[in-house]
Amino acid sequence: MGRTAVAAPVRALVFDIFGTVVDWRRGVARVAASYGLPGASFADAWRGRYVPDMDHVRRGALPWLNLDQLQRRSLDELLPEFGGQGLDDGAREQLVLAWHRLPPWPDARRGLARLRKRYLLSPLSNGGFGLLTELAKHGRLRFDCILSAELCRHYKPDPEVYLMAAELLALRPSEVMMVAAHRNDLRAAQACGLRAAFVERPREFGRPDLADRLPDPESDVSAADFLDLATRLGC
Amino acid sequence: MGRTAVAAPVRALVFDIFGTVVDWRRGVARVAASYGLPGASFADAWRGRYVPDMDHVRRGALPWLNLDQLQRRSLDELLPEFGGQGLDDGAREQLVLAWHRLPPWPDARRGLARLRKRYLLSPLSNGGFGLLTELAKHGRLRFDCILSAELCRHYKPDPEVYLMAAELLALRPSEVMMVAAHRNDLRAAQACGLRAAFVERPREFGRPDLADRLPDPESDVSAADFLDLATRLGC
Repeated sequence: MGRTAVAAPVRALVFDIFGTVVDWRRGVARVAASYGLPGASFADAWRGRYVPDMDHVRRGALPWLNLDQLQRRSLDELLPEFGGQGLDDGAREQLVLAWHRLPPWPDARRGLARLRKRYLLSPLSNGGFGLLTELAKHGRLRFDCILSAELCRHYKPDPEVYLMAAELLALRPSEVMMVAAHRNDLRAAQACGLRAAFVERPREFGRPDLADRLPDPESDVSAADFLDLATRLGC
Repeated sequence: MGRTAVAAPVRALVFDIFGTVVDWRRGVARVAASYGLPGASFADAWRGRYVPDMDHVRRGALPWLNLDQLQRRSLDELLPEFGGQGLDDGAREQLVLAWHRLPPWPDARRGLARLRKRYLLSPLSNGGFGLLTELAKHGRLRFDCILSAELCRHYKPDPEVYLMAAELLALRPSEVMMVAAHRNDLRAAQACGLRAAFVERPREFGRPDLADRLPDPESDVSAADFLDLATRLGC
């Protein structure tokens, strides 16, 4: 099995998805524009609801809702601000489904193929189980299984999500490495005993100064993209 | 999406694994023989503990234990009957792991590849999540996700397992088709509203008279193997 710079062997890599594997901003903007909405700014505003809404679930202010349900709720609230109050139910459904068909970053497919030769690969995302399954199939992203926050009804960065990944894979937390473009996700994974790999995605939010940037010295590995990560992990 | 002979479109095929996709008897016998145990008869005896042990969990006589834990328990009980009481912990672990690396039936890999072009594919098995993930990777069986009884802590034929599959895939039960070589599994799936595809595996138990045989008129489709199933489903 693969060895990282640290002592114990890592057996599985689990990936944050939105922003780390796929370009949500471009994907959502494209579908939004097809409905006459201002693509990128609408995508940014919708994405802006994402963390506060999950926090409502995390704190118990909302019952468990999966990501599709949260997105639909925030979409309905947001559309009037963008003149989209006239969009019918079918259009709203298609907008929610845009998150199931997001384009992978250009290096993602090839990087995963290289990493998969040595490691077990899975998403570990706040996206729903069905969403992630469809996203992987649509994007031809080859994972070995699908792990979603929905399986434990907790959202990252709750520790339950990271610990569930190790438990379901029958691995120790230190045998699992979280791969993400977001430092807060990696720090939460490390607090549960997982390893961390930072991958820079400077275009995630359009403006590079809004993204977490290299280096990330607290991670076990830092990489410029998935191909660089594969090289650094000896794949 | 694909259409079966019945009216509504099926979107996902979920597969029983042990006996339907992989040849547990040959796989377990081979590893057992390498430890000096009588291969096929040991495999049969071990497999014989499987349903009663799961029934203990289903009835609440045992707490939730995943399949690896149940197999280890029944292995420890069984070994003295076969003169294997001297096998150490490492050997016992390897025997349990034999169930993670079972050989696929000869048509399984190619059949799944054809079916995957039209349908979303997943195991729906009493094997643990980690076991199924490893089995698929080891056998180069391409599924789109992994669904295990472990995710709802119920064993088939409890309805919770079949209903969970539809719920996690965000599909109606009638959009999901259970594929199995065992009539009882198919009947339980149908009672939950799933469709059913029977695939004959006459060699599962060694003697063909011990297996469920064609035809299975209560199923929506019956097939001689996965290639035949792909043809019958228009793939």
